[in-house]
Amino acid sequence: MSIPVKDDEIDIVIGALHADLTSFMNAWRPIFTRFHLIIVKDPDLKEELRIPEGFNLDVYKKPDIDHVVGTSTSIIFSGYSCRYFGYLVSRKKYIVSVDDDCLPAKDNKGFLVDAVAQHITNLTTPATPFFFNTLYDPFTEGADFVRGYPFSLRSGVTCALSCGLWHNLADYDAPTQALKPEERNSRYVDAVLTVPAKTLMPISGINIAFNRDAVGPALLPCLRLAGEGKFRWETMEDIWSGMCVKVICDHLGLGVKTGLPYVWRNDRGDAIASLRKEWEGVKMMEEVVPFFQLVRLPQEATTAEDCVVEVANAVKEKLGPKDPMFARTAKAMLDWVKLWKSVGVSSYSPGA
Amino acid sequence: MSIPVKDDEIDIVIGALHADLTSFMNAWRPIFTRFHLIIVKDPDLKEELRIPEGFNLDVYKKPDIDHVVGTSTSIIFSGYSCRYFGYLVSRKKYIVSVDDDCLPAKDNKGFLVDAVAQHITNLTTPATPFFFNTLYDPFTEGADFVRGYPFSLRSGVTCALSCGLWHNLADYDAPTQALKPEERNSRYVDAVLTVPAKTLMPISGINIAFNRDAVGPALLPCLRLAGEGKFRWETMEDIWSGMCVKVICDHLGLGVKTGLPYVWRNDRGDAIASLRKEWEGVKMMEEVVPFFQLVRLPQEATTAEDCVVEVANAVKEKLGPKDPMFARTAKAMLDWVKLWKSVGVSSYSPGA
Repeated sequence: MSIPVKDDEIDIVIGALHADLTSFMNAWRPIFTRFHLIIVKDPDLKEELRIPEGFNLDVYKKPDIDHVVGTSTSIIFSGYSCRYFGYLVSRKKYIVSVDDDCLPAKDNKGFLVDAVAQHITNLTTPATPFFFNTLYDPFTEGADFVRGYPFSLRSGVTCALSCGLWHNLADYDAPTQALKPEERNSRYVDAVLTVPAKTLMPISGINIAFNRDAVGPALLPCLRLAGEGKFRWETMEDIWSGMCVKVICDHLGLGVKTGLPYVWRNDRGDAIASLRKEWEGVKMMEEVVPFFQLVRLPQEATTAEDCVVEVANAVKEKLGPKDPMFARTAKAMLDWVKLWKSVGVSSYSPGA
Repeated sequence: MSIPVKDDEIDIVIGALHADLTSFMNAWRPIFTRFHLIIVKDPDLKEELRIPEGFNLDVYKKPDIDHVVGTSTSIIFSGYSCRYFGYLVSRKKYIVSVDDDCLPAKDNKGFLVDAVAQHITNLTTPATPFFFNTLYDPFTEGADFVRGYPFSLRSGVTCALSCGLWHNLADYDAPTQALKPEERNSRYVDAVLTVPAKTLMPISGINIAFNRDAVGPALLPCLRLAGEGKFRWETMEDIWSGMCVKVICDHLGLGVKTGLPYVWRNDRGDAIASLRKEWEGVKMMEEVVPFFQLVRLPQEATTAEDCVVEVANAVKEKLGPKDPMFARTAKAMLDWVKLWKSVGVSSYSPGA
């Protein structure tokens, strides 16, 4: 059932928030060496990157970003948002992206998990968003559709997005992490499943892969919380982008899967210190969830670009009056689509 | 977070399609002895039941069914439908029901799974149907809500139904089973999750538990395929009932969970022989899925009984003209509600 994929159809995109990528790259070496890597250095990071030898990669830094993007945009590529620059300049069909504080995980038999292979399997086998299969992903080896699953829905739809999970440190928000400082996730849930159509979810950008041809422009670095820092639990850019991409997938008849692969996420930062900042993430979700639950896109929106423009216009109209942050986000989404289109027809080599 | 439950708030209901329950009961002994059991003998079964000593149980047979139900109903309690008689005469808050060809499973560490304890945990911790949590059931030990999960939705709703899974022989339909005669399911997916609101699923009656007070009347033996036999893959009564109970849970703001616990399901029957019969299950699902996706219940329907009546009326109107089977099913659903109400105010001891 799976579509064959060549290695050169895949870009691994890494946002470098840390200068020393030595242990990260070495840990991923057995998995990453076959592929082309795009490393985007956080423009706020002053130190030189340290990257070990032996990889096929392009590194993009602040001058590259400035050159490609210019000054006429509201998009900010600093912090975790730097990876989106990699999504922009890639020309590959599939993108796999992992945070630079994540290492390969082991499965429940102790074997190293090839996260890239699992993500690509998720993306190249169909998703089944219109009816829930209690036996999880029916396209997994040894699984199938359960009795009662409608035969007309068994061919499924294209899977556009694959969301992986985390061992050790799960992706909690700062309050949860601060409440459970000792909690570590070791449960290996050996499953992939399609998130049903019309169901919203918090998509984390820590460990994801997507079909760039199908939904690339819908993964966007457009929401920025006031006081956002360099810890994951202080950001919501991926959660916002995730709600956009999910409603767009639903509209376009594409699927989103979640589950395997796991990555091993290392401890970093002080959740209690983050809590001392005023975090807008809680309030933000209360306002945006009803919006995304109700937003409907017009039939004429048939591409991811079209859909992003429609969502942006609705954000401006419905959420804009509530908080200037949303008006800024809507503007950034429109700028992002313009940028995507203009960069899409150009070609650029880093350091040029 | 979990509501404390006393053992005497639970009935284990077993439909006996086989006369010799010795090995079944002995295998379940360490788990079942604490609880009251209701065994309902398939009225078509001629042989005397063989049940080992040492259980607290009531056995209901054809004369009991005839006595309680009388002749003025269209409900047929033969075959797998006999268990629903147990749901009817129980007076407990929680029902756990397992097919008589299932034995206790082992978990991924080799320990016996206490399926009753897991089902009751599922039912007594909240369900979260309005937003998907990528970390599965947040009320599982060691789990929580992922970053971005709206705080206002974290208290969840009452879980009304818990659907367990199967090791060894998964619950496939006859065509799938016939295509993969050697396939055995050994994947232990260590997760429970809430099936999102408005998402339909094929609920299997093989290994389930439910809150009888909340949704008892919505588990109903009303759809009977022509040529239905005594093999699971020849039946669809639970799939139909499951679609009813799911739309009713959605309407009443209740949750449905799926996942753990597993049971070990033994081989039985000849799928290829079943395939030679004309199986209406495939055609049936194609007709009923759009119906259940679109059916909306009125605000005034505030109990499971009300909701079943509303669904029955809609079935009669929308599906009745397509096939006399649906008109019969609608009639049986209305009869079931009447029966549920009348039996609910009476008391009866088996063999009286």
